[in-house]
Amino acid sequence: MRVLVTGATGFIGRACVAELAAAGAEVHGVARTAPPPTAGVVGHAADLFDPAQVGGLVAAVRPTHLLHVAWVTTPGEYWASPLNLRWLAASAELVRAFAASGGRRVVGVGTCAEYDWARAGVCDEADTPVAPATLYGACKDALRRVIERFAATAGLSAAWGRVFFPYGPGEAPERLVASVARSLLAGRPALCSAGTQVRDFIHVRDVAGALVALLHREDVTGAVNVGTGRPVVLADVIQRVGAITGRPDLIRLGARPKPATEPAVLCAGTRRLSGEVGWRPRADLDAGLAETVAWWRGFPADAEG
Amino acid sequence: MRVLVTGATGFIGRACVAELAAAGAEVHGVARTAPPPTAGVVGHAADLFDPAQVGGLVAAVRPTHLLHVAWVTTPGEYWASPLNLRWLAASAELVRAFAASGGRRVVGVGTCAEYDWARAGVCDEADTPVAPATLYGACKDALRRVIERFAATAGLSAAWGRVFFPYGPGEAPERLVASVARSLLAGRPALCSAGTQVRDFIHVRDVAGALVALLHREDVTGAVNVGTGRPVVLADVIQRVGAITGRPDLIRLGARPKPATEPAVLCAGTRRLSGEVGWRPRADLDAGLAETVAWWRGFPADAEG
Repeated sequence: MRVLVTGATGFIGRACVAELAAAGAEVHGVARTAPPPTAGVVGHAADLFDPAQVGGLVAAVRPTHLLHVAWVTTPGEYWASPLNLRWLAASAELVRAFAASGGRRVVGVGTCAEYDWARAGVCDEADTPVAPATLYGACKDALRRVIERFAATAGLSAAWGRVFFPYGPGEAPERLVASVARSLLAGRPALCSAGTQVRDFIHVRDVAGALVALLHREDVTGAVNVGTGRPVVLADVIQRVGAITGRPDLIRLGARPKPATEPAVLCAGTRRLSGEVGWRPRADLDAGLAETVAWWRGFPADAEG
Repeated sequence: MRVLVTGATGFIGRACVAELAAAGAEVHGVARTAPPPTAGVVGHAADLFDPAQVGGLVAAVRPTHLLHVAWVTTPGEYWASPLNLRWLAASAELVRAFAASGGRRVVGVGTCAEYDWARAGVCDEADTPVAPATLYGACKDALRRVIERFAATAGLSAAWGRVFFPYGPGEAPERLVASVARSLLAGRPALCSAGTQVRDFIHVRDVAGALVALLHREDVTGAVNVGTGRPVVLADVIQRVGAITGRPDLIRLGARPKPATEPAVLCAGTRRLSGEVGWRPRADLDAGLAETVAWWRGFPADAEG
C-alpha cells in the first residue's frame, strides 16, 4: 500500500505516520510545511486549501490509501472557526482527486462531537443520534456523509474514525492533561471543574493504531468509534497526574464551573472497533499519563507558563 | 440590497437575475462565462472552483445578499457526478468568504432529492425524513447542514430553498416537458413511462420568485420547499403537451418502464413557503406549458433531434 497521510506534522498525524512507517508501508506525509526527514517517510509540503496543489500532490504520489487527518484543531478556536468550512471544502476536493487518480481506500478522521451530546453516553455508531451542536462537528459530519455517498458511486472503500479524547506527548498545551501537568510541574495550582464528567481518554499512539488498523480493513466501512471503551472520570485522570507529578496538593477540583454543554458521559462504544476491525488498545492509562508528564518535564515551565 | 447570484447563466439563475433586476435590486450575476449585458445587472466571469477567484469576486462585489444557484446540473450526469464534491467545496468556500466580507443573508438552492424518497409524498420540512439516496442529494444536504451551523456562529441569516420539479422555456432538452415537446413538434413518438407518478411542477419564473421572496424574508431560516403545492400526475402533464402541440396521437404512455427508485408521490408541502414566506405561485400550468412548447417551436426540430 502507498498511503498519503494529511496533517502529517500534527498531534495525531505524526503518530499515524510513525505507525505506518513502522509497519513497512510506503508513507507519504503532507503538511503545509513538509514533515522533517524521517526514515521510511516521504515528506511533502502543500496547501490543501489550494485545489491546484491538491491535484498536483495526488498526481505525484498516486496513493492507494488516504488517511485524512488534517483539519483546524487550534484549542479554543476550532469549535466555531470558519476554517471548518475551508477544511470541509479542501477535504471534499482531496477525496475527489484521490478517487480520480485511482485511490482505493480512504479513512477520514471524525469526532465524538458528531453525536447528539444531549443523548450521548456510551455512543454506538448505529444507535446514538448524530446531531452536532458545533460548526466543527457539523463540518466533520457533512464530510462523512458525502464521502460515504461518493464512495458508493466511485468504487471507493471509505471509513470514518470518530476519535474521542486523545492525549499524549506533544498534545497542545491547552488540552486537559497537558494543562494540569504544566501547572503542577510549574508549582502552580491547577484550577479544574469538579471533574465528574465520564470520558474515554485514548493515547495518541492508540488513536494512530486504531486508524491504521481501520485503513487496512477495507471491508469495514462507515463510522467507527476510536476510543478505548474504558470510561474514566475526569477527576481521576487529574488526580493521577497529581500523583505522577508529586503535587496532588495543587489540584483545585470545583474551582471552575462545568461547561453547560458538556454531557455527563461521553464514551466510545467499541462494538465496531474491537468486533469488526479487531483492534484493542495497547496503552495503560497510568503509563500514558506518566509519559505525557515526562514530555512536559522536558519543557522549561517558564517558557510555557 | 446588493445581491450576488451564482449560476447566473443557468436555467434557474437567469430567471433569478431577471426577477431581482425587475424588483430594482443591485444585481451581480456570476458564471464561468460572464452573463450577457442586461439592464440593471452587473455580469462577472469567475471560476468558483478556484478559491482565489471566489475571494476576488466577493471582495470586488461585497454583496449583502447571496443567492447561490450554481451547481452541476447536466441531465443524466448530475446525480452521481464527482463534480458534486467540487460544488460542495466551492459552495462552502463561497459562503465563508461572503460572511467574512460582511454578507448578511444567504439563500442556497437545494432539492427535493434531499428527502428520503422511500418515505416521501407531500414533503414537510419538519416531518419528512432527510436521507438522500444520491451523491447530488447528499452534497446538497451536507451544504445545507454546514451553512445552518455556520450561520449560527457567523451572524449570518441563512435559508435553503428545496426546489421540486422546475420546467419552462430554456430548460435542458433532456428534461421531461422539453423532451416530450421536442418529440411531438418533430412529429416523432414520445416514448414515456406510464406516467402515474404524482409530482410538483413549478414554472422556472415561480422558482425564481419564490427564491427571491425567501432571500428578502431574512427572518425565515432553514429549509423551505419551493413548489406550487399543486400535485399533478405526469401523464396529465404529458397529455397537456400533446394537446398544445396538436399531436396527442404520438404519445406512447407505458412504452418505457418507470425507474425503480422513483417514488409514487413527490410533492412540496407549502406550509413554510406560503405561510411563513407569504409567497404564492403565479404561473398557470397550461399557460406555462404552452409557453415552453412555443419556446421549442423556435428551434428547428432537425437541429435538436
